[in-house]
Order: sequence, then C-alpha cells, then structure tokens
Amino acid sequence: MRVAFIGLGTMGEPMALNILKAGHEIVVNNRTKNKEELLAAHGAKRAITPQEAAREAEVIITCLSDTPDVEQVVLGDNGIIYGAQVGSVVVDMSTISPEATCRMADALSKKGIKMVDAPVSGGSEGAMHGTLAIMVGGDSLDVAKVLPVLKAMGTTITHVGPIGAGQITKSINQIIIAGVYVGVAEGMALGLKAGLDMEKVVQAISQGAAGSWVLSNRAMNMINNTYPLGFRVRLHQKDLGIALETARKLGVTLPVAAVVDQIETAVIANGYGDEDVSAVARSIREQSGIR
Amino acid sequence: MRVAFIGLGTMGEPMALNILKAGHEIVVNNRTKNKEELLAAHGAKRAITPQEAAREAEVIITCLSDTPDVEQVVLGDNGIIYGAQVGSVVVDMSTISPEATCRMADALSKKGIKMVDAPVSGGSEGAMHGTLAIMVGGDSLDVAKVLPVLKAMGTTITHVGPIGAGQITKSINQIIIAGVYVGVAEGMALGLKAGLDMEKVVQAISQGAAGSWVLSNRAMNMINNTYPLGFRVRLHQKDLGIALETARKLGVTLPVAAVVDQIETAVIANGYGDEDVSAVARSIREQSGIR
Repeated sequence: MRVAFIGLGTMGEPMALNILKAGHEIVVNNRTKNKEELLAAHGAKRAITPQEAAREAEVIITCLSDTPDVEQVVLGDNGIIYGAQVGSVVVDMSTISPEATCRMADALSKKGIKMVDAPVSGGSEGAMHGTLAIMVGGDSLDVAKVLPVLKAMGTTITHVGPIGAGQITKSINQIIIAGVYVGVAEGMALGLKAGLDMEKVVQAISQGAAGSWVLSNRAMNMINNTYPLGFRVRLHQKDLGIALETARKLGVTLPVAAVVDQIETAVIANGYGDEDVSAVARSIREQSGIR
Repeated sequence: MRVAFIGLGTMGEPMALNILKAGHEIVVNNRTKNKEELLAAHGAKRAITPQEAAREAEVIITCLSDTPDVEQVVLGDNGIIYGAQVGSVVVDMSTISPEATCRMADALSKKGIKMVDAPVSGGSEGAMHGTLAIMVGGDSLDVAKVLPVLKAMGTTITHVGPIGAGQITKSINQIIIAGVYVGVAEGMALGLKAGLDMEKVVQAISQGAAGSWVLSNRAMNMINNTYPLGFRVRLHQKDLGIALETARKLGVTLPVAAVVDQIETAVIANGYGDEDVSAVARSIREQSGIR
C-alpha cells in the first residue's frame, strides 16, 4: 500500500522501518528533519509537510507525543486534512485523548477522510521487532483496510470498538499497570525492610494469584534499586493523566490510579522521570528508609 | 511421619486429608468436634485437646483463622506447648502476625519444641488438589524435617528465610494482590462506562505489561458484576490488616494497600464480605454509577 508516516521518534522510526520491510511504499515526515534520513536511506520518500506526505497515501499514520501534536499535524497549517485524498484513512498510533480523537475524526469525515485510532503497547523493543500490541478503534471497513499495514508493526491487533475505543483501551492498560507496579513495589519494600531474600520471595509467589508480568519482569529492578528502560515514568504519567481526565469526564472514580499519579509526580520531581516505570519503587523505598 | 493436625476448616480439612492419603499417621483436633468425623472416617485418630493431639506427634500442624486462635492453641490451656515432645516441630499454616509467630517460637524453644511458619496461597481449590503454594520460614533443619508432610499439601514450597519470613512473604503476596485487583477493577470500570466490549479489551491487553493472573482469571467477574468464590474479601482484608500492621511496625509506607483496605471496608460494610476479592469492583462500579 501507499503509506505516509508522520512522527519518527523512538517508536515511530522502527515502526516505519517495519512497514518498509513488509514491502509497502512509504513517504515520511518529521518535525526534526534529520530524523528522516535513516528511513530515506532505506528507500522512503521524504515530504516537507504532513499535508504533502498525505497527498498520495492510502493510509496516513501519525505517531506523536501528545494530543496537541496530533491536532497540529492533522488539522493545523499544512496539516493532513489539507492534503489527504477522499477515502484515505488516517491511523493515529499516538497515545492521546479519546475525546480529541473523536473531534478530529469528525473534522476529517467532513472532507471524506476516514480515521482509526490505534495506540500501541510493547515499548521500543516491540516497535523494533514488530511485536507491538495494537488496540484499534474505528469503523470495521476502515480497520480492515489498514490491517495489512498494522500487521507489519504488531502481533496482537485487536479491534475493540468505534473511533476512540483504542485510546480508551490504552487508558485501561495504563490504569491497570499503575495498580500493579505500585502493588509490587509496596510488597518488595516490606520484604526488603524485613531483610528477606527477595529473589526467593518472588519465586514463591509469582505463579499464584499475585502473579503478573510486572512481578516476573520488573520486581528485580525494584529489589536492586536500578531502573533501566523499559518505559519511562514520565510517559506513563502522561498516559495516566489522559486516563484520569477521561475518567473524570465519564464519571468514573479511580482511587488507586490517582494515588499512583501522585507517586509518579514525586518520582519525576526527584529527577527520575526518564527511568523505567518500576522506579515508582524509589518513592516507596525512600519514604520507608530503605537505602 | 506421625502428624497432629489442629484446625479442620475450609482449608484444614482437605489439607489433612491429603496428608492421610500420602500415607502419614494423623491425629486431628478441632474446636467444633463434628468437623473431626470426616477425617476419622478416613482413618485419623481424634484428640480431645491440642495438648493431647501433640503428645505422640513428630510434626504438629495448626491451620486456624487468626493470630489469637493460634496463640490459644499453642500456648493456652491444654495447648500444644504442654503436650509436644522435645524435638517435635510445630508448623503453623495459618495466616497470622509475623511478630506473634516469633514470640510463640521463642516460648516453644524454651521447652525444646521447634517452630516453622508455613502460610499458604491457592485457596480451597489448591487445598483440595494438594497444589498449594507454601511459603516457609524457619531453621533449615526443621524445614527439611517437615518437608515430606508439606509436599502432601502443596506443589510450590519455598523456604524464604528464618521464622516469621513465611508470614511476611504471605503479607507481600496480599499487598501485591491488593494493587492488582483494584487496578484491574478501575480499568474495567472505565471501559464499562465508555461502553466498550470488555471481553475484547481484556483480550487486547492481557498478554502485555498489564497482564496478570487477576486480569486473566477475575476480570470477567468484574465485567459481569458477579463474584463467586474464590477467596473471600473479608479474609483478604484480615490478611491485609496483618500486612499493614507489620508495615507500620517495620516503618514501611503502603499507600495503595491502605486505599484498598478502605475500599474493602466499604465492600464488606455493604454486605459483600463473603464474595470473592474481585468484588472490590463493586465499590468502583457503584461509585461510578455503573449498574
């Protein structure tokens, strides 16, 4: 297919490379121009603006940091909306506000342009290996159309509902992660303070009802008090902010996610925002006098 | 081995049966006497008091509800301490205070009686099938001595440290469970309020970083708003109370576990204490107006 890819960051660059490798034609665009060079060296065309990138594309992918970035690229000056063909599909793979997603889809639909939201999980490693989990919201026909391109980037691709549903699913993912990470961090802190052999403790409990991906893959970070990436605390907190805002608008109470948001504020304020999310354990450890 | 088993409740009865089936001799004792009959029908002897049950035993197992029950049976009138032989090992498989555990072990050791703490997880199903996870604290020689009996009841048996370490590990398990259950409950509430197909959402996220035993095995309870047992909320809250008390004494801060404790208080106060722990979702659902 003819694909435009806008946003070549930590996630976007390897995702675009995987689309190229799968045999699709690709036009790339990035605010910082030299980030386009690697893709160009692999055969991608380059476009000066999102508008120009969108012109020939059947599928236009955006992979950006936050809601205002996507709004700018889709609806702003030289935005996708001024270049995209009738019937083309915008696929936003950023993690942004579900409400803003629906507003953009409305604006695009007035010009005959379709939109699908498709945020991902699996981190930079999943982006590199094409093993992302992709949570897709949109009309079935549009989702079916872009599926060959999504398959170049991910292994678990789930169509969860109408436009915006992908973003809400991503919020659900981040809310659950919040509870699990801090639950594990609190458990590890108790055991550390009591002087237990924490590797044995993790082994004793990880196959039962307390078991999770976090316990199996991130508890050792918390025990060793080193937090290599992974997924940055500050990015998780950005996503949790979207989740809390969405929950507030929908009227859903999230008492644990709200506490975790405060813990992450403290971790970031103390200079650890670029560490892995498991660094929430720093807050529990330090407040408990564990050195 | 010659085993005494004191406390034939929901957990103790099937655990004692598995010890019998493994070929050990067993003497049982229970406060409510007719609970001894099933075991007697399978070949167990009966004893009038814990003191009498302990008299001939090499291993004396207690499986009771809470700290005061174990203190009564071990140190009270007609308690184990007045019957047990020098060199015998008391194995407490209840979930109780680690501090009280250490105090009892001290009292017993003055009479030449050993003690091991060995709380379990895996619920009544694990008790029935002999597939419990057993978290063991105590001296290595004592643990080695009782291992053949533990193996009749569980599949994952981990010696985590000295006396009391089993109880602290159980607390860690319950702290982690607290964060995971409410994290999942909050995520499900957001999706339900937004009208998503929650079965698809769970499928989309359960293989990634949000994955857990709870998400895979209890999210459907929360989605359907029905909470069959499982493990009772009121028992989890009892255990969480021990964890919070232990953390307070050790100087460990547990902000998420404390919030979950409050949520469980509300769930129990509203009459749902005998439902599965996943009923914490009732609180999130009802406060969010999800019917």
